[in-house]
Amino acid sequence: MNEHEFYMKLAIENAAAMKGKTDPNPLVGAVIVNHNRIVGVGAHLKAGGPHAEIHALNMAGEQARGGTMYVTLEPCSHYGRTGPCAVAIVEAGIKKVYVATLDPNPIVAGNGVSILKEANIEVVVGICEKESREMNEVFNKFIVSKVPFVTLKSATTLDGKISSFTSDSKWITSEEARKDVHQLRDEHTGILVGVQTVIKDDPELTTRIEHGRNPVRIILDSQLRTPLHSRVVKDQEAETWIFTSKKYDKEIKMALEDHNVKIFVTSGEERVNIQEVLRILGENSISSVLIEGGGEVNASFLEEKLVDKLVVYMAPKIIGGKQAPGFIGGQGIEKMADAIDLQNLDIIKIGPDYKFVGYPHYKKA
Amino acid sequence: MNEHEFYMKLAIENAAAMKGKTDPNPLVGAVIVNHNRIVGVGAHLKAGGPHAEIHALNMAGEQARGGTMYVTLEPCSHYGRTGPCAVAIVEAGIKKVYVATLDPNPIVAGNGVSILKEANIEVVVGICEKESREMNEVFNKFIVSKVPFVTLKSATTLDGKISSFTSDSKWITSEEARKDVHQLRDEHTGILVGVQTVIKDDPELTTRIEHGRNPVRIILDSQLRTPLHSRVVKDQEAETWIFTSKKYDKEIKMALEDHNVKIFVTSGEERVNIQEVLRILGENSISSVLIEGGGEVNASFLEEKLVDKLVVYMAPKIIGGKQAPGFIGGQGIEKMADAIDLQNLDIIKIGPDYKFVGYPHYKKA
Repeated sequence: MNEHEFYMKLAIENAAAMKGKTDPNPLVGAVIVNHNRIVGVGAHLKAGGPHAEIHALNMAGEQARGGTMYVTLEPCSHYGRTGPCAVAIVEAGIKKVYVATLDPNPIVAGNGVSILKEANIEVVVGICEKESREMNEVFNKFIVSKVPFVTLKSATTLDGKISSFTSDSKWITSEEARKDVHQLRDEHTGILVGVQTVIKDDPELTTRIEHGRNPVRIILDSQLRTPLHSRVVKDQEAETWIFTSKKYDKEIKMALEDHNVKIFVTSGEERVNIQEVLRILGENSISSVLIEGGGEVNASFLEEKLVDKLVVYMAPKIIGGKQAPGFIGGQGIEKMADAIDLQNLDIIKIGPDYKFVGYPHYKKA
Repeated sequence: MNEHEFYMKLAIENAAAMKGKTDPNPLVGAVIVNHNRIVGVGAHLKAGGPHAEIHALNMAGEQARGGTMYVTLEPCSHYGRTGPCAVAIVEAGIKKVYVATLDPNPIVAGNGVSILKEANIEVVVGICEKESREMNEVFNKFIVSKVPFVTLKSATTLDGKISSFTSDSKWITSEEARKDVHQLRDEHTGILVGVQTVIKDDPELTTRIEHGRNPVRIILDSQLRTPLHSRVVKDQEAETWIFTSKKYDKEIKMALEDHNVKIFVTSGEERVNIQEVLRILGENSISSVLIEGGGEVNASFLEEKLVDKLVVYMAPKIIGGKQAPGFIGGQGIEKMADAIDLQNLDIIKIGPDYKFVGYPHYKKA
């Protein structure tokens, strides 16, 4: 690791510490170095607040002049809720800027770097690019596609089961792993399950950690079978949105709406159109969705190639059983050549369990 | 790690280097240290040859006198194919002996240590015990129970599948993982599959690595449906033993026997009695069995609590599909509390795949 990577990693760490807090903005960190001393650090704390570069410039004060800035994302060029950072950097007298990644936001996308270069600031783009890009994977997708970043989460045994043949699933994974799930919920703006899960488990789908934020609870329910007495309808702990098909019942719809449940009717005749669900969620500012469905909901999103990331908590246990459900149901692929590869797979030990994190790579077809 | 652990680990490494070569004897290594210098090292190379202690004593010669020996297994006390090592150690003038584990072999079992102590040699037992015990897990079970050590091996996707719903399974895992399987075969004296695997895949079940030894091919076949034209019957590359039930056909039995296939008729009326299979295998000097069955064969051994060790090669892929078979079929457990825990789980990366190695811990019932 050379000195530039060292400073950029520090900027990334500062940015990452705000995970889940900056939505809908990306995570950004900045470090200013002058004469081999760190004179300023900053991170974007929350939407509406100053950008990371401004915090770092404020901390550095006059010591910014002649210095080098390391910033995880291209400085902005537009007048939004705050002024353009690129201009502030120029005015502060920074001489060189290292940028990890260009801003995919179409209203920036290179313009920030252009402003710096026009002011004769030397700009180097691409240092620690992978880490920085991954850190903002939600933002990077959403800002361009307006469709939420979709993470499929499951808890399985080593043999891929999510319950025994008698539907017992309490508990497959450890307390530590289940706590980690609440961390995941905290980082998402939406959580999605099928109506079967609501009927069977009556889950709260809330974030049970200190200062945790509840995602919007999203239920796929083609015939509005969500029970009026279920927790997601009654507890008012978080918003609940139900997506249904044309097959819904008007009276039930009104009854649910009386409980502050939002109902979205998709164009699906018998089943909910899940592509449409994601589009509607995006229009309603849901930038990330955590799917905690059963095997069938999971399979439907995977089969339509809508899953961006997979998180599987695997317990070192065996359930067995031909009829015990696996975490991906549906029909499955036909030929091994068409199997979905998981890329950049990472395995993290959590208590006695293992957390697999990977990115599905779909074969063309 | 203190100096004693250091020397004992060296002895273990010397022993382990002979993996698969000493059968039916255990792996044993020895190191002799005198005045802080290693003066002798040795390992048991093959049954009938000198024990590790003798090799180390020969190397040390006169320098053994007054020295300390580190030996992974209790020195033997009996006159077998070689003289008792304990006596040789006494005669060589060794003053202190560190032993990793006592010999579970009922004809030794502490007698070796007694001989040393009677000669006023100081003996310390238990250093690096776990590593030494694991290294000889096959021997340790077989010498006491006369039943082979059973390892269940499977190759699965992350979702626990061993083939797609159309039965395509070529290939789930990488070439590297498949090569590792041949290493496993080399280390076993028996390899076991169900007749379904023979009919469907027509496998060779041989060890395709340089200087690899072929295990005896063991087929569970309750009705003698093993095709006469199958490779395991025709190729004569290794012995093939078929275990059947009382439901077998005499003519087919004779036809198979004409191809040098050994047929064992178990007491099972309709299905092969697998407890009996293991007992018969033990009587025929098969000390270790590698099960490479399908989901049903795997489940039958697990459900009868006959699996000692599990080795799962997991590819970072997803197949999905309710009907795609998992690696443990059968009925499976009913309640999560009865799930089989895998203890001492180890995950080793092999090429793009992951090798899970663990020891099933069965709940009482």
